[in-house]
Amino acid sequence: MFVRSLRSVTHAPRISRNLSSHTKMSPPEKKQKTGGYSSTTCWGGIPGRGEFVRLALEYAGVPYTENNENNILSTLGNPAKIGIPPHFAPPALQLPSGHVLSQTSNILNHIAPRFGLAGELGSRLAERSEEEEAEEKPLTKEERERAEEERSTVNQLVLITLDLTAHDTHHPISSSLYYEDQKPEAARRAAAFRAERIPRFLSYFQCVLASNPATGGTTKCKGKGMFLVGARTTTADLALFHVVDGLLYAFPRRMKTLRESGEYDSVFGLHERVQGENGIKEYLASGRRQPFGMGLYRHYAELDGEE
Amino acid sequence: MFVRSLRSVTHAPRISRNLSSHTKMSPPEKKQKTGGYSSTTCWGGIPGRGEFVRLALEYAGVPYTENNENNILSTLGNPAKIGIPPHFAPPALQLPSGHVLSQTSNILNHIAPRFGLAGELGSRLAERSEEEEAEEKPLTKEERERAEEERSTVNQLVLITLDLTAHDTHHPISSSLYYEDQKPEAARRAAAFRAERIPRFLSYFQCVLASNPATGGTTKCKGKGMFLVGARTTTADLALFHVVDGLLYAFPRRMKTLRESGEYDSVFGLHERVQGENGIKEYLASGRRQPFGMGLYRHYAELDGEE
Repeated sequence: MFVRSLRSVTHAPRISRNLSSHTKMSPPEKKQKTGGYSSTTCWGGIPGRGEFVRLALEYAGVPYTENNENNILSTLGNPAKIGIPPHFAPPALQLPSGHVLSQTSNILNHIAPRFGLAGELGSRLAERSEEEEAEEKPLTKEERERAEEERSTVNQLVLITLDLTAHDTHHPISSSLYYEDQKPEAARRAAAFRAERIPRFLSYFQCVLASNPATGGTTKCKGKGMFLVGARTTTADLALFHVVDGLLYAFPRRMKTLRESGEYDSVFGLHERVQGENGIKEYLASGRRQPFGMGLYRHYAELDGEE
Repeated sequence: MFVRSLRSVTHAPRISRNLSSHTKMSPPEKKQKTGGYSSTTCWGGIPGRGEFVRLALEYAGVPYTENNENNILSTLGNPAKIGIPPHFAPPALQLPSGHVLSQTSNILNHIAPRFGLAGELGSRLAERSEEEEAEEKPLTKEERERAEEERSTVNQLVLITLDLTAHDTHHPISSSLYYEDQKPEAARRAAAFRAERIPRFLSYFQCVLASNPATGGTTKCKGKGMFLVGARTTTADLALFHVVDGLLYAFPRRMKTLRESGEYDSVFGLHERVQGENGIKEYLASGRRQPFGMGLYRHYAELDGEE
């Protein structure tokens, strides 16, 4: 358990050399986006889905306390301890009001506008200071509709990345059994996952990135963009970064083949870009990030293959 | 493919005899909540996740066209046909603006306030007509925060119900193989699912329902409420209805034992209540609802058991 102090860095995205020309201009320096959080508690559980929430908190520079007590569900599942309604599983996050939310994509969708991570328009849905409101007109109805659409598009892409989590490749029968008790089934499932699911997923995200008009994309998926929505980092970028990172850890041989095919350059480019973002860069260097190991992404050499 | 005309019924929830006294008063008759949709297109795919979206559309009385062309992904995955970004899988829904959204929970979270299905406060986030706005003060900042929290709490409960979908019990190795090619694995997985997953899920929702203060719940989960959030129907209620319905179809023997235990009376009570809601009642009687069969919920006698 730890609390760290508020970072004072800004979150202007680092612009990569590979971006197409009309996204090369530096965006204006942005104020830190802590979304009203002075600090918060994150019930992360074992390294796994909690990491998607941590990445957003680290990007926003919000200090947080980790609560990873042994039987985390005796708190999260008990209305007398956590409030109404109780929760089914970690991760969970305490909001400034004290209310606790769970379910990874739900937490991210709730905080994304507050942290400037819901796209250019989507992030304008967050409440702003009186000072900011005086400077800027409120959203019109039409703008609000478009902002809600952008926020939901970001959420949609987060959900797709979460669908790919590799958990079931090592626990296809039950998560309450050891891996050792389901090895033959895991071998079959991992083979299908490597052959079909990973390439389908990478192809899909390659097309999303390469068709993004804000970074020179075309409807034929021929661009070189490395932002999923618009030309700024969203929770979807952070989530895709983490899933690709997990796949590189769990299936290094398969991912090497796929990377070297050259078919997914924007996806691997996004992975590299996010590593250098303000907030994320410092987090990765800090030693705070929990290593992959016994959580969602595990490396078993016998489940990997070049194909 | 079909288009049906706009229903003119209202959506005041039917109040069950079993509800605790302070929710027995009839809510005011509500105007139809079509959320600005005069009609829409739903890419539902095979009976499965699309049904969660259909239930919300039917509840709201929004006419929709089903698009279930054979190779649905050749449209949904192609930016030249569907717009930006492309989609990974059905279901998808066209918004009044023309923009298409996918991912079940995302679609539901987007439309829930517009259809009055995001809770009492959460539903106030939707844009209202000028007439309605004149009658009512706009939300204060604090009200908007609480409304966003309620909307996210509804989304959280939707996500938990979707986590329970039974698909992997009959396809634990790969969805691209036939059931017949993964029968031994399916038998092992279904046994674990029946023994652990279903009771854990029903216990959790029983506690959410029985701790809901709006229907007389207590933090010891001793109430008899049948609404997940507040005292009105939300997308979470519709989703839980459908999952319980699917489990009753797929695992009739197991569910009979669990129902007769008397431990999950609020969950089974909600299932019965939702069947009688305006909009849902007519839908179930219409013959439009696709039967369970070869989709998410399948009945294989050898995967069921009383335990």
